[in-house]
Amino acid sequence: MKATITDVAKVAGVSMKTVSRVLNNEPNVATKTREKVLAVATELRYSPNLAAKGLASSRSYLVALVYDNPSPYYIAKIQSGAIDACRKFGYHLVPEPLDLTDEADEASQEEAVRHLLHRLPVDGVILTPPLSDSPGVVKALETMKIPFVLVAPSGRENGISSVKMDDIQAAQEMTEFLIAQGHKSIGFIKGHIEHSATALRYEGYRKAMANADLPVGRNEVKQGDFSFRSGVTAAEELLRNRSACPTAIFASNDDMAAGVVSVASRLGIAVPDDLSVCGFDDTPLAKILFPQLTTVQQPIYEMGYQAVKVLVDPALKNKPASTHNLDFKLVVRDSALIQGS
Amino acid sequence: MKATITDVAKVAGVSMKTVSRVLNNEPNVATKTREKVLAVATELRYSPNLAAKGLASSRSYLVALVYDNPSPYYIAKIQSGAIDACRKFGYHLVPEPLDLTDEADEASQEEAVRHLLHRLPVDGVILTPPLSDSPGVVKALETMKIPFVLVAPSGRENGISSVKMDDIQAAQEMTEFLIAQGHKSIGFIKGHIEHSATALRYEGYRKAMANADLPVGRNEVKQGDFSFRSGVTAAEELLRNRSACPTAIFASNDDMAAGVVSVASRLGIAVPDDLSVCGFDDTPLAKILFPQLTTVQQPIYEMGYQAVKVLVDPALKNKPASTHNLDFKLVVRDSALIQGS
Repeated sequence: MKATITDVAKVAGVSMKTVSRVLNNEPNVATKTREKVLAVATELRYSPNLAAKGLASSRSYLVALVYDNPSPYYIAKIQSGAIDACRKFGYHLVPEPLDLTDEADEASQEEAVRHLLHRLPVDGVILTPPLSDSPGVVKALETMKIPFVLVAPSGRENGISSVKMDDIQAAQEMTEFLIAQGHKSIGFIKGHIEHSATALRYEGYRKAMANADLPVGRNEVKQGDFSFRSGVTAAEELLRNRSACPTAIFASNDDMAAGVVSVASRLGIAVPDDLSVCGFDDTPLAKILFPQLTTVQQPIYEMGYQAVKVLVDPALKNKPASTHNLDFKLVVRDSALIQGS
Repeated sequence: MKATITDVAKVAGVSMKTVSRVLNNEPNVATKTREKVLAVATELRYSPNLAAKGLASSRSYLVALVYDNPSPYYIAKIQSGAIDACRKFGYHLVPEPLDLTDEADEASQEEAVRHLLHRLPVDGVILTPPLSDSPGVVKALETMKIPFVLVAPSGRENGISSVKMDDIQAAQEMTEFLIAQGHKSIGFIKGHIEHSATALRYEGYRKAMANADLPVGRNEVKQGDFSFRSGVTAAEELLRNRSACPTAIFASNDDMAAGVVSVASRLGIAVPDDLSVCGFDDTPLAKILFPQLTTVQQPIYEMGYQAVKVLVDPALKNKPASTHNLDFKLVVRDSALIQGS
């Protein structure tokens, strides 16, 4: 037997209007009453029909995750956190990939977003990198008056809510870790030039090197693009001159670090004995490589979860824009651990 | 300026009713007229509001992807194909993870599905493995009269539409490839005992060995569970006795094959010179390992795409149940290529 709203009201000893208020996360219900109603609704496995809910409140109970990111791992993690938060608040997530490579200017990017969303009634939108830095995308959402939140945008504060982590601090701590292990010559591989994280991670590396009075040679920094292939190319350049090559390489993501490990293995350079290697992201790859990668664990799941909360949690939504800084973690594994230490 | 249905009708020179029919994929419109209307609608960037569309036709234009699969890569690929097909037909995808580990029996699994879906009005559901083999999940959808399609269910035909590939044939061809390279002692690592693919891939291996009159020793087959860790354990057992170990190992997925490569690397066994290694799935990992993995490329994206077509394409839906067999591909890379051959 499917429980109705009347059943919930009866068992909880409140009016149907109160049940409706609680289930729609509306204000002005005492905490105790709210908890009672939610407990009864869960107990009876009551859940309102989404279409009926939407019709009554003019909400769709849908949140769109709009992304254009080549890493399925990153998107899957964001999505997993976002779906869990959606469930908690009675919403559903609609993932919408958006490829802007053919849209030359801001106006056509704006048009592409409008085309994507004006047929889909959503209550909010989550933008992931690199879209969270796209002025055309942001402008379209503002014009359409759809609430949105940015995941990991570049540093500038701009009056839009965001969830992020401190990439500068994380890269700085990773570099300091290598310096503490005794490394003086530390190579660095930059990420894709269009991703905001690229400059931030590089800045963290520079800061740590400067703080330790270690010079950064021109040949110690290579441009990558976050792909495995670009890590291979950069490593081949960094390790070309065996007598003067760095004793550690910090690649600004795991895929590029995997490229470094692969080149080292081919050249017979032992990791970590002759070369320490660090990545960034803690993808599943980090644990599968031999040796396992020392890397930075980003709060990706948590960013997805928090992004939905900012959009739908009555305690957070319709509030002034806020920046939510979430914690990262250095994960030290064999690729940059001096053996016997 | 946002184009209206009147604009489309005027430019295409047809009635509004015809435009509506075409956009809702209804039958009885001449192909030429249909193409004209679609071309004009695309040209004018016309797209009907989803809620209005749903209201008029009692469709939600939502398809749910219900999954409980530990591989983010597999789900991301299925999802990518499903989203592309949804776009083509004017639908949107809602991914819904469903964890049944706490639901002990069929009745409680059925209840969990009902709870998940009775608040979300969807026009169809895609079930991925292992849910596509769960009687409780299937029963719930039948009772709720929601159209659904199974991705890669086990071999039995049961009157339900499915999209799949031939795992037996693929595993047989991979084993035959190893035999053609001169291997006579080929180790095999089985997958998770609850996944239907496990038995099918093992059967393909057995068939190829039997066809070539090669005996399969008790010590040549190890039980894994599709995880990297289980591949490591199985490889340690298979490679323990160096004087009598197999010259090739076929792991029934890439993660376990990565475990084999990692153990070989640790033991100083050269891949592929002293040991050929094959996987199954062609995950991104396959290209990142050193050496790169020889593996089977499943049509994962294509299965997601075809599953949506079966549910929403007017040419396929409301038809008797059908089985769609999609093509796999052997991908030969360095891990099982005899060098110099």
